[in-house]
Amino acid sequence: MSNPLPVGATIGILGGGQLGRMLSIAASRLGLKTHIFEPGANPPAMDVAHTVTTAGYDDQDALTAFANAVDVITYEFENIPTSALDLLETLKPLHPGRQALATSQDRLVEKTFLRDLGLQTAPFANVENADDLAEAIKTIGTPAILKTRTMGYDGKGQARIMTPDQADSALADMAGAAAILEGFVDFKIEISIIAARNPDGAVACYDPGENVHVDGILSTTTVPATLTPSQRTDAVLLAARILNALDYVGVMGVELFVTPQGLIVNEIAPRVHNSGHWTQNGCVIDQFEQHIRAVAGWPLGDGSRHSNVVMENLIGDDMDRVPEAAKTNAAIHLYGKADVKAGRKMGHINRITGNA
Amino acid sequence: MSNPLPVGATIGILGGGQLGRMLSIAASRLGLKTHIFEPGANPPAMDVAHTVTTAGYDDQDALTAFANAVDVITYEFENIPTSALDLLETLKPLHPGRQALATSQDRLVEKTFLRDLGLQTAPFANVENADDLAEAIKTIGTPAILKTRTMGYDGKGQARIMTPDQADSALADMAGAAAILEGFVDFKIEISIIAARNPDGAVACYDPGENVHVDGILSTTTVPATLTPSQRTDAVLLAARILNALDYVGVMGVELFVTPQGLIVNEIAPRVHNSGHWTQNGCVIDQFEQHIRAVAGWPLGDGSRHSNVVMENLIGDDMDRVPEAAKTNAAIHLYGKADVKAGRKMGHINRITGNA
Repeated sequence: MSNPLPVGATIGILGGGQLGRMLSIAASRLGLKTHIFEPGANPPAMDVAHTVTTAGYDDQDALTAFANAVDVITYEFENIPTSALDLLETLKPLHPGRQALATSQDRLVEKTFLRDLGLQTAPFANVENADDLAEAIKTIGTPAILKTRTMGYDGKGQARIMTPDQADSALADMAGAAAILEGFVDFKIEISIIAARNPDGAVACYDPGENVHVDGILSTTTVPATLTPSQRTDAVLLAARILNALDYVGVMGVELFVTPQGLIVNEIAPRVHNSGHWTQNGCVIDQFEQHIRAVAGWPLGDGSRHSNVVMENLIGDDMDRVPEAAKTNAAIHLYGKADVKAGRKMGHINRITGNA
Repeated sequence: MSNPLPVGATIGILGGGQLGRMLSIAASRLGLKTHIFEPGANPPAMDVAHTVTTAGYDDQDALTAFANAVDVITYEFENIPTSALDLLETLKPLHPGRQALATSQDRLVEKTFLRDLGLQTAPFANVENADDLAEAIKTIGTPAILKTRTMGYDGKGQARIMTPDQADSALADMAGAAAILEGFVDFKIEISIIAARNPDGAVACYDPGENVHVDGILSTTTVPATLTPSQRTDAVLLAARILNALDYVGVMGVELFVTPQGLIVNEIAPRVHNSGHWTQNGCVIDQFEQHIRAVAGWPLGDGSRHSNVVMENLIGDDMDRVPEAAKTNAAIHLYGKADVKAGRKMGHINRITGNA
């Protein structure tokens, strides 16, 4: 067993959004403090973190002071500038590590990694220019989707190509950014599996959740998902293979398409994941505590579930539904964001639907 | 329906111990901020509260600034100086109100209130001097227990009188404080019921927990308790009667002795209660969120339980058990206290024992 962080130690978290907020709450339960590093003012995590540093990722002094003040560094989003990581990892352990970040920050690297692991992905091709795109459309066919290789999330940086004549317009949408063409996958359902690995190599998975997206943003996750026992087994084995290959430490969200040809990996996120929020009310040890346990070198929870849950995101004006939801015995989780904006994740609701 | 506090509002909490800490975490889930008022430095709640004021209860300027900065005031302990309450309640709503505090701060007032409500208590008598005590021992008999009327908790300020000749020594232990003699109750088990009431008069109760004390300090709470259906009903009705009589707003812990003659009220605590910590892992809406909902004027959770739980307190050196507990899939809740001291509540562990 590696040396676990002692009670009272401090977890440094890059990013102070809702994931950092819920990580901070989980850490506090274990008697661990959190120190948030976040460029924006008044981040959601501020209300529940022990310390907040407000500074940019190019502020070397602030990064150094942050690293010196914490015992281990983790993050709530994968698009952290490389220069910041280069500095931080010389000062304190960074979990999950650089290999996981480098893989998930770039869709082309990620898809190539998954394919090389022997896992199924959507057909894909690198697109650097119009010629590449024309060639890729020939190979992959349409409909397909052009995505920036980096920095995309929640459907941003994506353009659908329903017919070959939409290629130019889609390429223009990329605004010169490096891109990847992905073939459409004809899937029955999308699921995600939230997996964790600690420094000793122990792996634990939660039961997969079934996801429904609306306008490219996760709307609901339902647990249990509609899966056969062998599909469940496949999902667990596949997740473990990914985490082991990356010598991963922390929680990872793995999005999968369920197809007649088996499970196809859509994408991986090297962090706690929106589709794992149901664990807060379905499990004794939720994904946030699981991640904190992993990066702190503590034993992992076994991923067992006491209740079935439907998680519903509150996006933008969905906040208007909170007063009604408060009457229903549902678990309400709000992120403390002052401004309601269209498309902005404001909170989520977990409804227990029965014993597991 | 009274006007509920809007998301983003601030709950002021007097006291920054573990109860204030867990209240802060619960408030954050609902998008409510907390502002802790606490005389001691580095209180446990500091790690997870939006704002902390460090000042004494005699600091009128600090109390005024605190009240002006919050939307409603509550507390995590009942022994708040009267002068502070006199000031605060002129500035902002105070929940639970003065009647509940005045009742629970003084064992004689509390017992009298309960008896006048038609509820059973241990036999008791006011003891102001040696003559009173001699008279009380004649009426009540021995064994009995002499307790200070105010400021006692966790077995402090108490002296057992096993035989009449121990009267002088027990009275000396009171160090001149006003006292009350209570007869021993021959009980099978001790239970507590955690009840809540909101400003609309809605009442909700959790199923009673069965408590085991060691050295006067709560050691474990087990849910469900060993009770007949009619005992459960009696406990709920009795708790509702107490809350309604006090026009109570918030969560209250009611400790009861189960005897062949029915339920006997041991004491009431006008706050979240150690014997309700099991709700964190047994219920969707735990006692901390329930209290926040009540004082914020939100609808209450219905008190339903998804899982059976055994709660075990971690007192002093019990902290040494945390590494083993971390391997067992139990829910660990630590309070962030830097120094381990004998008799000090450092955390607790909730173990789910099955579906409810």
